[in-house]
Amino acid sequence: MFPRPEFDRLRVVLVSTRNPLNLGAAARAMSNFGFLHLRVVNPYDLAFREARSAVGASPLLASAAEFKTVAEAVADCSLVVGTTAVGRRELQHLVKRPEHAARLIRKRLAASRVALLFGSEKRGLSNEDLSHCHWLLRIPTREVHRSMNLGQAVAVCLYELARDPQTAPQPEKRTAASAAELERITSVLLDALRASGYLKSTPSGSPKSRSAAPTDEKIRRLVRRLNLSSSDAELCLGILRQILWKSRSGNDPAGRADT
Amino acid sequence: MFPRPEFDRLRVVLVSTRNPLNLGAAARAMSNFGFLHLRVVNPYDLAFREARSAVGASPLLASAAEFKTVAEAVADCSLVVGTTAVGRRELQHLVKRPEHAARLIRKRLAASRVALLFGSEKRGLSNEDLSHCHWLLRIPTREVHRSMNLGQAVAVCLYELARDPQTAPQPEKRTAASAAELERITSVLLDALRASGYLKSTPSGSPKSRSAAPTDEKIRRLVRRLNLSSSDAELCLGILRQILWKSRSGNDPAGRADT
Repeated sequence: MFPRPEFDRLRVVLVSTRNPLNLGAAARAMSNFGFLHLRVVNPYDLAFREARSAVGASPLLASAAEFKTVAEAVADCSLVVGTTAVGRRELQHLVKRPEHAARLIRKRLAASRVALLFGSEKRGLSNEDLSHCHWLLRIPTREVHRSMNLGQAVAVCLYELARDPQTAPQPEKRTAASAAELERITSVLLDALRASGYLKSTPSGSPKSRSAAPTDEKIRRLVRRLNLSSSDAELCLGILRQILWKSRSGNDPAGRADT
Repeated sequence: MFPRPEFDRLRVVLVSTRNPLNLGAAARAMSNFGFLHLRVVNPYDLAFREARSAVGASPLLASAAEFKTVAEAVADCSLVVGTTAVGRRELQHLVKRPEHAARLIRKRLAASRVALLFGSEKRGLSNEDLSHCHWLLRIPTREVHRSMNLGQAVAVCLYELARDPQTAPQPEKRTAASAAELERITSVLLDALRASGYLKSTPSGSPKSRSAAPTDEKIRRLVRRLNLSSSDAELCLGILRQILWKSRSGNDPAGRADT
């Protein structure tokens, strides 16, 4: 089930955001992944008004709640998680990887509200902002280029939250070709290879020449390596039958198989 | 170790991107996660120039390679993965979740190059673009708001690729066929299908008939699904050339190819 009902308990909190495009991008990622509650703290007024009134602005952005302080914005949440680009040692917080953070957040969301905070584009979260957080989440990035674009950081965090590590990988929809189908292909392909002169022909019904078997096996193994689905097997068989028919009937441009 | 050395083998390919901000955002996420090779196919000229000359544009964007066609942009890659927002049933491709896709891509990167394709903001990848792909990756999003911002989609895919689910991947023993090898097979196969009457022939050099393109794409996709190794690709090419030669030369029982 996607999005899961507990997603409704997450509050994405953007603190002192400056760029209206980033507000819009954050809202878009929230909508993509099914987290619909945005809170903004002390945004640049103009940026916020601009983002809200932009063409195609989401209802999510229009209904964003505005707060003067982080304390007010997170008051009803039982877990407050900050995001940071830096692994500063002086941070008085545990810094967790996204996978681990997401596990803890999902657990908490099952029963109560969680706030996920993102700082401004220029400075990130201030020490005062951070002091409201229980712990921090950091997306692993290169040492030499740590700081992510705000909208992209929001997207990655929400993707990780929405990702269900438990979900068994989807079974493939395709049905693999059966051994009988593969053997039919092998047989028609061998006939076509003989008709085309790629393989020496063996009169049908006669005992196979000594060298025929290894070649047959080589072709049989090739067909098995092709990873054919049942429908692709049918397609290949049609192609090969037409080619075989053509090889046998000569070069008549109007010729079509009747099988 | 981050980024891992095999990241150097990924090619992020942006097809027909329109918005310079998205080019910049894609480049930024690539730099964040340590994937430094960008290719652009047929970008909107102005957007590309603007993005390249933007203040703070990355060296990565400045050194992006430009191509006229998807075929050229992926020719040296042995795995070509498209991204899509839609789970269209009519897609003739396997669509994989990011976690699974990332595992397969990392495995392949251990030994050879992989292309990850992103389409234009408006239309995504075209059917012709998709026909060059082995399979597709879709980021799970809400039914009612599937389509992600391009820069955010790039960030999420690269995050998932860079995310370390424990260990260094084992290199695959087999060498996968390159896109160029697969395209050669596609081309000879199409000729053989026309020569055999399976497909209507299109005089070479003449404009393609309206129905030619979808068939070509169907065959191109079939070839990509075959999971060919480089040596199997060579074997198949030899077979197809002989069959083609035979189809064109008529039904001469003594005929042998001299190639």
